[in-house]
Amino acid sequence: MDVKLSVTPYKGTRDFYPRDMKLRNWFFGKIRRTLENACFDEYDGPMLESLDLYAAKSGEELAKEQTYNFTDRGGRDLAIRPEMTPTVARMVAGKMGELNYPLKWFCISNMYRYERPQRGRLREFWQLNVDIFGCDTFEADLDVLQSAIAILRAYGADESMFKVHINNRRFFNDVIAAIAGTDAEGSKKISKVVDRKNKITREAYENAMEEAGLSEEQIEQIDALYSMNVKEATALCPNSVGAQELTALFHALEKTGLDKYCVFDFGIIRGLDYYTGTVFEVFDLAPENNRAMFGGGRYDNLVGLFVKNAKISGVGYGMGDVTLENFLITHSLVPNLDHEGTKVLVTRFDDVPYEKYTALVDTLRGAGITAALYLGAKKFGKQIDYAVKDHYSHVIIMGGDELANGVVKIKNLMTREESTVSVAELATFFA
Amino acid sequence: MDVKLSVTPYKGTRDFYPRDMKLRNWFFGKIRRTLENACFDEYDGPMLESLDLYAAKSGEELAKEQTYNFTDRGGRDLAIRPEMTPTVARMVAGKMGELNYPLKWFCISNMYRYERPQRGRLREFWQLNVDIFGCDTFEADLDVLQSAIAILRAYGADESMFKVHINNRRFFNDVIAAIAGTDAEGSKKISKVVDRKNKITREAYENAMEEAGLSEEQIEQIDALYSMNVKEATALCPNSVGAQELTALFHALEKTGLDKYCVFDFGIIRGLDYYTGTVFEVFDLAPENNRAMFGGGRYDNLVGLFVKNAKISGVGYGMGDVTLENFLITHSLVPNLDHEGTKVLVTRFDDVPYEKYTALVDTLRGAGITAALYLGAKKFGKQIDYAVKDHYSHVIIMGGDELANGVVKIKNLMTREESTVSVAELATFFA
Repeated sequence: MDVKLSVTPYKGTRDFYPRDMKLRNWFFGKIRRTLENACFDEYDGPMLESLDLYAAKSGEELAKEQTYNFTDRGGRDLAIRPEMTPTVARMVAGKMGELNYPLKWFCISNMYRYERPQRGRLREFWQLNVDIFGCDTFEADLDVLQSAIAILRAYGADESMFKVHINNRRFFNDVIAAIAGTDAEGSKKISKVVDRKNKITREAYENAMEEAGLSEEQIEQIDALYSMNVKEATALCPNSVGAQELTALFHALEKTGLDKYCVFDFGIIRGLDYYTGTVFEVFDLAPENNRAMFGGGRYDNLVGLFVKNAKISGVGYGMGDVTLENFLITHSLVPNLDHEGTKVLVTRFDDVPYEKYTALVDTLRGAGITAALYLGAKKFGKQIDYAVKDHYSHVIIMGGDELANGVVKIKNLMTREESTVSVAELATFFA
Repeated sequence: MDVKLSVTPYKGTRDFYPRDMKLRNWFFGKIRRTLENACFDEYDGPMLESLDLYAAKSGEELAKEQTYNFTDRGGRDLAIRPEMTPTVARMVAGKMGELNYPLKWFCISNMYRYERPQRGRLREFWQLNVDIFGCDTFEADLDVLQSAIAILRAYGADESMFKVHINNRRFFNDVIAAIAGTDAEGSKKISKVVDRKNKITREAYENAMEEAGLSEEQIEQIDALYSMNVKEATALCPNSVGAQELTALFHALEKTGLDKYCVFDFGIIRGLDYYTGTVFEVFDLAPENNRAMFGGGRYDNLVGLFVKNAKISGVGYGMGDVTLENFLITHSLVPNLDHEGTKVLVTRFDDVPYEKYTALVDTLRGAGITAALYLGAKKFGKQIDYAVKDHYSHVIIMGGDELANGVVKIKNLMTREESTVSVAELATFFA
């Protein structure tokens, strides 16, 4: 066969070479440590799910246009997961009676969406999902927001770099009903327009609002809401449960000192249909990248899709790796990971038996030192080049003379210092 | 909508609830630490690849019958990766000129194969892949074998629990040619029968060997090989390059003390067509589970599928999580991970302002202590139940009295000991 295969990964996906993978592990490591420190438990689910899982509650675009779906050899309609929420709802429903509520769960998993690849959007991406199940009140909303802020702060980000914009779907519906007298269906229609506000022209926005049944005056009343703070806004509908939820949440944010990261924003809707209470989006404050990075909210009824009359509330968010990486790069928060810790290459000469080298490497590894033997039989200069290119911190030289004297030479590749050390003192040298 | 969705994951896949995930992270953590300690670099590739990547060099069963494949909305034929080797070969080919050889790479990724789920086989599984590229000689084979043994030893396994069975494809072909005068195609036919030897009856084996063109006497000659050691076997074909490779490898295994984990086995073939030199399989020695757990070998030509005239040799193996887990459970090598380290639940009373609790939790987390505030407003007894069920090591009690005195009560849930500690001394208490 002479036709050569392409070396390019499938459109919208990435190869993670060791350098990329190191960065990914650094990203995810920070997240894991932050969340585990706050007693969130990691979970995971399968890449493939039954297609009907997504048809049920996701936004229509996601379910119909963006999933990778196909029929398996047994005739089952499957989808590669485009998001994690349906999976986690299924898992909670599956062990509903055994689980210990409130659950604080997270996962970091890859997803597929059929999108046109562009800045911040790929077809395969990883997504952190954080959720709390089984706590209906502001405490869970606060804890979830706190975890998102803690993750960004763990990378060194501060309040000058990001802002959490918060709204409440219940409040939104109540205010819209109060202004326009709409029912749930009418509010939904209007919410779709508000959700697109920043992506369309003012003219298109007004036209769409009019189509949704609003008068010019009503559109102006809604305009006023976009610049209100939470006190002004909730005063419009003080008896709304959503307003009370907002008030309790913002009170707690203020008392816990998280308010400097947060702002009320009536324009926050979140596209997916399943949100019912608090909704939020985290914005990058960098002028060149000023947009929502990720978001989430409260969805009260997802478990009910699986178990009759069940009701376990959830609140959470999803954070994609691509947008997070863009944010961290924009704010110069990614360190150089090339030179981290001790990494020792044992070089090899022909006049020393091979097993002397493997024994030396075993000694180093046994002492917890990252070490390898140069594989192959190239000249010494080539072995040093290899070590430098692969960011080894030290090379060890043990020729016939050193072997006879029970010592090795150690060369520090950063400082160029050379030391002669007995094999017995090796572990101490690197300690 | 009243039809309820199923809570069962797709056939042959698993949900990883937090307890399962903890185990998975423990499994993979051991592997990562062992391999990083030996200077292997982690990489990853996309879940979806072009279908033709698998048609080229994998075994036919894998490519045609076991892949999940479909056509995307843009008309591209895709497969969910059933194995990692084609992806890593593509990645190496993609940056062939920039990489620093020998490469020591590993990844831990999920794969899909359309199989009938059974013990040790699922449709979705995770697989460790370890490969060394760019070293043609025994050093790389040895390093790869050493890493597999080091991983099993890191779990506490010893030579009474597993054995590495080693053969060489080149040697196999040369011996078969010497015995039966077959060409490459003929040897391949015979190798397929030998590969199935332990899965079929003796009669079926003999019939298949005869069909492949062997006489009774030739079958007996091959029978003799199954019980030979490496010296006896290689003496049959001393000029075979494969025999020389086997001799060099076994010499090094002996000198480095790894020979106690290894044995020559002429019956080891490995199903996939791309192996060219050393092949090996690691067997579980437990009588109730005595079979190959995983294996690998040398494949010299994979990069050539992508780049004309390129030749970068590779040697490596893949280890599935399901078989590894079976092995560790069989040998009682899985610890109870429920009670690991300090994990503190701060309980909550109504008479203390919420922000006092969040501040206390912040103090604990800031000191590196895993801690959470009970979310919600249940009775104290329920909060303790929650802590016990979720394997918290301690609960902290701060009611109005404690708050007034600047102290907290700490209850150790294992020992039932109770201490009263000032907030300033909290970090020291848990240190």
